[in-house]
Amino acid sequence: GIAPAVHAQAAIRWRLASSFPKSLDTIFGGAETFANAVRAMSGGKFEISVHAAGELMPAFGVVDGVQNGTVEVAHTAPYYFFGKDECFALGCAIPFGLNSRQTTAWMYEGNGLKLMREFYAKYNIINFPAGNTGAQMGGWFRKEMKSMADMKGLKFRIGGFAGKVIERIGGIPQNIPGGEIYQALEKGTIDAAEWVGPYDDQKLGFNKIAPYYYYPGWWEGGPQLDVFINQKAFDALSAENKAIVQAAAAQAHVTMQARYDAVNPGALKQLVGSGVKLRPFPQDMMNASFKASMELYSELNGKNPSWNKIYADLSKFRAEQNLWFRFTEAGFDRFMQAQKL
Amino acid sequence: GIAPAVHAQAAIRWRLASSFPKSLDTIFGGAETFANAVRAMSGGKFEISVHAAGELMPAFGVVDGVQNGTVEVAHTAPYYFFGKDECFALGCAIPFGLNSRQTTAWMYEGNGLKLMREFYAKYNIINFPAGNTGAQMGGWFRKEMKSMADMKGLKFRIGGFAGKVIERIGGIPQNIPGGEIYQALEKGTIDAAEWVGPYDDQKLGFNKIAPYYYYPGWWEGGPQLDVFINQKAFDALSAENKAIVQAAAAQAHVTMQARYDAVNPGALKQLVGSGVKLRPFPQDMMNASFKASMELYSELNGKNPSWNKIYADLSKFRAEQNLWFRFTEAGFDRFMQAQKL
Repeated sequence: GIAPAVHAQAAIRWRLASSFPKSLDTIFGGAETFANAVRAMSGGKFEISVHAAGELMPAFGVVDGVQNGTVEVAHTAPYYFFGKDECFALGCAIPFGLNSRQTTAWMYEGNGLKLMREFYAKYNIINFPAGNTGAQMGGWFRKEMKSMADMKGLKFRIGGFAGKVIERIGGIPQNIPGGEIYQALEKGTIDAAEWVGPYDDQKLGFNKIAPYYYYPGWWEGGPQLDVFINQKAFDALSAENKAIVQAAAAQAHVTMQARYDAVNPGALKQLVGSGVKLRPFPQDMMNASFKASMELYSELNGKNPSWNKIYADLSKFRAEQNLWFRFTEAGFDRFMQAQKL
Repeated sequence: GIAPAVHAQAAIRWRLASSFPKSLDTIFGGAETFANAVRAMSGGKFEISVHAAGELMPAFGVVDGVQNGTVEVAHTAPYYFFGKDECFALGCAIPFGLNSRQTTAWMYEGNGLKLMREFYAKYNIINFPAGNTGAQMGGWFRKEMKSMADMKGLKFRIGGFAGKVIERIGGIPQNIPGGEIYQALEKGTIDAAEWVGPYDDQKLGFNKIAPYYYYPGWWEGGPQLDVFINQKAFDALSAENKAIVQAAAAQAHVTMQARYDAVNPGALKQLVGSGVKLRPFPQDMMNASFKASMELYSELNGKNPSWNKIYADLSKFRAEQNLWFRFTEAGFDRFMQAQKL
């Protein structure tokens, strides 16, 4: 039998603050996968309770919460915190950055995780990749976007860092919480709104009031979710539990992307069936957005030494990844996408 | 303190037979990642020793080895075993099948894992996804392939199931172990050979004797590696250790793909720098190969009831995935690949 001393010794209870509501089963689900795996692997001796945004702290309060030890762990999209430092965006997604697989490769087998951990250490945080949505959609527009000129003065609900680029191409970025977007779009307070992709967007019903659905979401080609863990809480874990946390995060990482990929096609089909007009962004708008993004990054290189260091590595990795992906990966995908299947 | 009874009770030793040589650090490394994670999470109480191909049994003997309990676990590419039953290929890669992300989505969040486990149960095996190489290259050719006609009579070293399609388009598939390919290609015993991708291929030096390097490897758009575990050995594990095995496999799954993605670009650059001629397969060859593959699958539907059942699900999933991936994922990638980065 097992000695009672072992039980008593091993009991660990953590609280996890998510930046997401329970209704987003995809992305909120990533935190649940993580916590369930930790519980199962530890035989219930390491329990992490998962709390939706607003339950313990606001969605955008979770970095403060982990930093000051109010909670041991958060599950979030790091780019929400670019206002503290633009480098948070580098750990998640920047306009014209990496796609999902490339982000994972940079983190696990490039210098990404090492560089981001150096940065997060300033906030008493150690991070583990724990999910990705894949390339997001460009969002819902009340009117058709025929060229770059249509961006001028457009009030566009867009999350976080990407707003800096929207401003540079003539748009007016609006920061509106998820629950209030529908009403703003319906009333015409805003002209367009981006959220995530077909499966999550469908729940919010944007197709009823903004029929044009644009792609690609060039500001998030593969945004990564992370678990942010208070460094002191992590350091206090046994070597076994540290390894358990790492593997549980990897499990959440792989299953969240799989879940998005599995559920998006059906949602897109239903949306198109309901009359949604699926459109690519005009080429001149793509080009202008790319140019504006590169100019922004150049300016940040001069202002923010951490950005300069991390972005130099990321952009070199990005160039190499695209050189490779354009041949066999893109060749295979392009052929398959052209077939009648 | 910990009671001695707990220690004695928990000591588990497994042997893992890999189908790969140690020299393939990418793919052999997946088994090491898996075993190291299990060891770390269990505090050394669950030890898996990792053995290269040939050490305990031949590369292609590992399914028999797990089935009859000679080893508890194998790490392999299931399509090697299509001679036992074509369904093994469905759990790994078939010509014009799914890409890496789509395979993972089908397994974790579609019906893939459920259907494959039903099938593997006949072999006393329970499987866990544990790696993917991404889309492989189409291989090394001594002469340029200008059209479909150049496939006629071509002696092509190609692994496993894809040979059935090569035959149908006029080629002569050759099954030659990795270590003997170079000599066969140098002597002209064969005209072409495929292996994996730039990083693994570079080690074997094919570029010195067959200058044309083709893409895409349409017969393996995202081949999955698995850990195959003897069902009785798995059933004997505690719930904690079962969860540890699952998470360790997920960790191997995500890190192997990341590793391939991180190392392939540099190898491709070096190969091209050494004079390799990178070429897409001629369009008529792609089309004929696709047609021949679909005909083969129709025939198998009539002959093999398990194939019929699993392929029906996979092909429906494939159609939906390509519908979705062609818009925002492909749109983002295509734009990025066209930029000067």
